[in-house]
Amino acid sequence: MHFTVETSANGVVEREFTLGEITGVLWSPAGDSADPSPLVLMGHGGGQHKKTPAQLARARDAVTTWGFTVVAIDAPGHGDRTRSAEDEQARADLGQALAAGDNDAFRSVTIRYGTSLAERAVPEWQATIDAVQQELGIEGPIGYGGGITLGTAIGIPLTAAEPRISAAIFGGGFFPHEALIEAAREITVPVQFLLPWNDEHVDRHDALALFDAFGSTEKTLHANPGDHRSIRWVGLDNEFLPRHLGRLSLSSKASGV
Amino acid sequence: MHFTVETSANGVVEREFTLGEITGVLWSPAGDSADPSPLVLMGHGGGQHKKTPAQLARARDAVTTWGFTVVAIDAPGHGDRTRSAEDEQARADLGQALAAGDNDAFRSVTIRYGTSLAERAVPEWQATIDAVQQELGIEGPIGYGGGITLGTAIGIPLTAAEPRISAAIFGGGFFPHEALIEAAREITVPVQFLLPWNDEHVDRHDALALFDAFGSTEKTLHANPGDHRSIRWVGLDNEFLPRHLGRLSLSSKASGV
Repeated sequence: MHFTVETSANGVVEREFTLGEITGVLWSPAGDSADPSPLVLMGHGGGQHKKTPAQLARARDAVTTWGFTVVAIDAPGHGDRTRSAEDEQARADLGQALAAGDNDAFRSVTIRYGTSLAERAVPEWQATIDAVQQELGIEGPIGYGGGITLGTAIGIPLTAAEPRISAAIFGGGFFPHEALIEAAREITVPVQFLLPWNDEHVDRHDALALFDAFGSTEKTLHANPGDHRSIRWVGLDNEFLPRHLGRLSLSSKASGV
Repeated sequence: MHFTVETSANGVVEREFTLGEITGVLWSPAGDSADPSPLVLMGHGGGQHKKTPAQLARARDAVTTWGFTVVAIDAPGHGDRTRSAEDEQARADLGQALAAGDNDAFRSVTIRYGTSLAERAVPEWQATIDAVQQELGIEGPIGYGGGITLGTAIGIPLTAAEPRISAAIFGGGFFPHEALIEAAREITVPVQFLLPWNDEHVDRHDALALFDAFGSTEKTLHANPGDHRSIRWVGLDNEFLPRHLGRLSLSSKASGV
């Protein structure tokens, strides 16, 4: 793990790093703390990268409000990563399908490319977790902090494969093909699932079938109107990860009726 | 409006009342307050009554945490109300359908009886609002505080008909027939919709069609595993009514992504 640029502002230390071909960024609380800082993984959406303004804001808030350490990496072919011929071809195919308004082609390319990205990204995330835990000398529960679309297509097989992840935030906006549904069935940790009610590409009932598939005893579906670009979440449970990563009493937001 | 029994405990004054044939209960903050106390209406579930232990706990919490005034009334033929021949017949029919495991009959009786109850309950709720506002000298925004099953079957036509209601909590567990869907389309105030993901009677897609029908720009679907008796809500936005009834800044739980 090789740190390249380090900055610090408003109580947050930001360190960009490389780990082999992986390009990533680590945010952690400034100053020494005796308190162990739980690790949160943040996946980004398709075509995006590890440091979009929205992800930066969420990461900094997670560090300053809850004392988390947050790590984000670029998906293969995204952000600062080199693009392979496959990456370039997939981007061209996606652009063409969108321009033609051909949702079947868009769906087919998205599933093919998303599956390929997830196969490459899962071991990269696991290597990143190993390196961060060793570098910072931390253990303990890990949260997967979301990202709808591609962040979910990678996060679901990652969470199914990785016993160190104790709670995960997923969302709609990605076509839930059979392999994704199968991986969801293997997940038993608490899940928060964020659904844009009016996604322009993914059929609502397909997204709901994905929520239905999670093997978790505790899972919450939260939907608001909008598609995955225009969505404005309202009344969201922002204490989901803090509660499951030991930052809050487990009972504080649970209630019977 | 005739008050019958008044008790006071832990900062909450509880007053039972009658208003014509209506039997109800009013909970309000003890002591004088210069602050106007927004009114919250609480509907109960089918076969239940105005003072179930769960409703009592929710009402007291709403008074002590948010300073609300809460009113609940028995639905026609429920709680302390006299049962008509129609009420007795419907209860017998429902019991028979359940005993026979006949969900079609259960659905048909529930819709017929629920529609009849709502027709009687909506003007009763409106008379209750008039009387409470006059008695307490309060105006301002009103919230409908939920109740799934019958509380929703009554609350939806009430909220569609009553411009004084500014925000409403509804839920699943009732069969969304066409008239209910039509009433939902007329509702434009913020809605929080609570869905038991595994209701034993009501088809999930029917319940989702009801959520879809609300005309509101701001609406939130919240689902957890369980049926409407065993459901345990997790990570629920308990600030929904406070936010829309002026008890919180409007922006405090809203966030873009």
